[in-house]
Amino acid sequence: MFKLIGKALVAQGGGPTVVINQSLAGVVLEARKFSEITKVYGARFGVSGIIKENFLDLTESTTHNLERVADTPGAALGSTRDKPGAEYCRQMFEVMRKHDIRYFYYIGGNDSAETCRIVNEEANKANYELRVVHIPKTIDNDLVGTDHCPGYGSAARYVASAFAGANLDNRSLPGVYIAVVMGRHAGFLTAASVLAKKFPDDGPHLIYLPERAFDAEKFCVDVKSVYEKYGRCVVAVSEGIADKAGNLMAMSFPRLSTGESSRNPGLDVDPHGNVTLSGSGALGDMLAGLVKVKTGIKRVRADTLGYLQRSFLGCVSEIDRHEAREVGEKAVQYSVWHNVDGSVAINRVGDYAVEYKLLPLGDVAGKTKKMPDEFIAGDNMVTQEFINYARPLVGDIFTLDRLAAPVVSSLPS
Amino acid sequence: MFKLIGKALVAQGGGPTVVINQSLAGVVLEARKFSEITKVYGARFGVSGIIKENFLDLTESTTHNLERVADTPGAALGSTRDKPGAEYCRQMFEVMRKHDIRYFYYIGGNDSAETCRIVNEEANKANYELRVVHIPKTIDNDLVGTDHCPGYGSAARYVASAFAGANLDNRSLPGVYIAVVMGRHAGFLTAASVLAKKFPDDGPHLIYLPERAFDAEKFCVDVKSVYEKYGRCVVAVSEGIADKAGNLMAMSFPRLSTGESSRNPGLDVDPHGNVTLSGSGALGDMLAGLVKVKTGIKRVRADTLGYLQRSFLGCVSEIDRHEAREVGEKAVQYSVWHNVDGSVAINRVGDYAVEYKLLPLGDVAGKTKKMPDEFIAGDNMVTQEFINYARPLVGDIFTLDRLAAPVVSSLPS
Repeated sequence: MFKLIGKALVAQGGGPTVVINQSLAGVVLEARKFSEITKVYGARFGVSGIIKENFLDLTESTTHNLERVADTPGAALGSTRDKPGAEYCRQMFEVMRKHDIRYFYYIGGNDSAETCRIVNEEANKANYELRVVHIPKTIDNDLVGTDHCPGYGSAARYVASAFAGANLDNRSLPGVYIAVVMGRHAGFLTAASVLAKKFPDDGPHLIYLPERAFDAEKFCVDVKSVYEKYGRCVVAVSEGIADKAGNLMAMSFPRLSTGESSRNPGLDVDPHGNVTLSGSGALGDMLAGLVKVKTGIKRVRADTLGYLQRSFLGCVSEIDRHEAREVGEKAVQYSVWHNVDGSVAINRVGDYAVEYKLLPLGDVAGKTKKMPDEFIAGDNMVTQEFINYARPLVGDIFTLDRLAAPVVSSLPS
Repeated sequence: MFKLIGKALVAQGGGPTVVINQSLAGVVLEARKFSEITKVYGARFGVSGIIKENFLDLTESTTHNLERVADTPGAALGSTRDKPGAEYCRQMFEVMRKHDIRYFYYIGGNDSAETCRIVNEEANKANYELRVVHIPKTIDNDLVGTDHCPGYGSAARYVASAFAGANLDNRSLPGVYIAVVMGRHAGFLTAASVLAKKFPDDGPHLIYLPERAFDAEKFCVDVKSVYEKYGRCVVAVSEGIADKAGNLMAMSFPRLSTGESSRNPGLDVDPHGNVTLSGSGALGDMLAGLVKVKTGIKRVRADTLGYLQRSFLGCVSEIDRHEAREVGEKAVQYSVWHNVDGSVAINRVGDYAVEYKLLPLGDVAGKTKKMPDEFIAGDNMVTQEFINYARPLVGDIFTLDRLAAPVVSSLPS
């Protein structure tokens, strides 16, 4: 029987989440159980730490410390957006060979899965025996082949809690409130804005997803219509909304107030070709300005939820926390017991349990799952099917209430 | 012995908080114990609900419902920014007289205290016997005469949790991260960004408060200096920062990149004369743009924490929750047992307990407390005195950790 014996290396890629360190702890604690794995190293700042030989020896970390790190948001090893090419891989294997690294676990989204696919392919070409397992992580929930992604449930919980609070704030001081939510191509996180709704007139009243073409004129008509009905309007907008020609609103936005077209100068592009949409309030501000000008409504406010969606301390879904731990453990089991490469995925079983499976890297790498049609209602709302899908993932959100009291002015005084 | 017998009326003014309904519940539950108070009404949308005779009869609300509402963020009665004048008051007294309202409790900040002062003065002039008690509420913590304000502790907890998470995110993907925090004139909330710091190199590394003149050139030098030391920089900026001439940065900001001067068009002014600084990401975006241009650092991101600071579901300081309840109860006690008008204030006793007192309305109305000098270190940091002052108010924030593991590349391979 063939046994691959050597060191394991774990690293983290892309945007961090509040539970990404659960997966890290899962890998390290599980790997330390196997005699095939002689040591467990962590690479600092993703693949960039491999070519720089910037490792931590996690074999010696106490379980207590690992458990505390697991509960800490952010990528404890540091992350990167580097995309390795053939030469990058050659340098990686040189370092890996030196340390006899035979198991590589990479925690990240579809770009990190793409990194795994490239590393695996290049390792085969170079005849370097290496198990490569991608461990899913993304707040966008946009990996294909999996029911959902670790990281999504907690981010969705943050977004649901944010909109529940903002809805009450907007009820206190009525007006139009717009909040921009992360999600480049997939609307899952923006859609999560509905998950703490309780009363029929609770916001968000309108939800704009990247899966549907955004029409600025229609948007203003929608907002005005809700405002006329409820005296207020709460709107969730994905940062990735684009017009029917596919132009991102955040990139090039018709300033309908002045007629001029402006291009947001603050946007960067990462090595995977993604435009950075977060870290700027421009889209929200432009939409708020548009509503003011087009509807004449005076109190219009916009927030951009920003990086707190993936990092806020103390907003964790319990189910997300458990599953993030388990995908890390499963990655090690698949690679050692079955000696295979792949991407760990989640199957939903019943309502609600999960089981795990391993997908070929090529099935996941660089691909993006969008919201299915049955989750989207028209061009500005989500369906009950989406709510049924997402609610177990965010966990319990405490129940809100409003004053149950008779109106006095209808009584004789 | 004189006994003032009649109905009580409670209302909420200004920006809501996550604990403002605790004060509401405190008033209603306490008032229902007194035989002097025949009924407890709530006015919808602050004083505007009085002239519109828009009342709820809270005498009949169940305690269970009130307790659930108490735990719900936002102003359950609705709020307003109306500032009553003499004619407004005349209309109020007409309605109050009709309903025989003799006790008025107004939960709000310094503008609401000013409303109480005006109502009290006009009631005296009109010979309308009315007890007026202001119940403190503000996330800004800027009321004079009180150690701190209900609402601050929970908002400070949100800000501390936000920066703790953002710091870890910034550690994962290093660069410059700027977050803009609420606080028009007082820096207490921005200062709270330090409260979850643990390790010496944790952010925020720089804190800009409205109490110190903001110098855009110096700001860029500060950021660059931190970035050179740590390879990253986390910055907390108050929305109320102004240059040495007192010009708000959010209002008129020198676009150093282009040389042109721009004026943010999205800002409104409320009836109390306050410029609306929240609900726009412009200040953060401008500061991020400035840092990019002036320092050449590539990864620069800005978030504006926005309305979630005062509304986010599930981020409540226990101490804040208790005190918000108690100031409501005390307001009723002072007015009934002592037959006096005033503003409820908090005295800190030891480390940490509180007692309550009643201040004359004129001592609090329309006045703003700023951060004392001993809480501010230089022009970009807070002191240990501030941390000692604020930490009990936010409650425990769970402890973070980082990986304790030896660096491998220093070992022989």
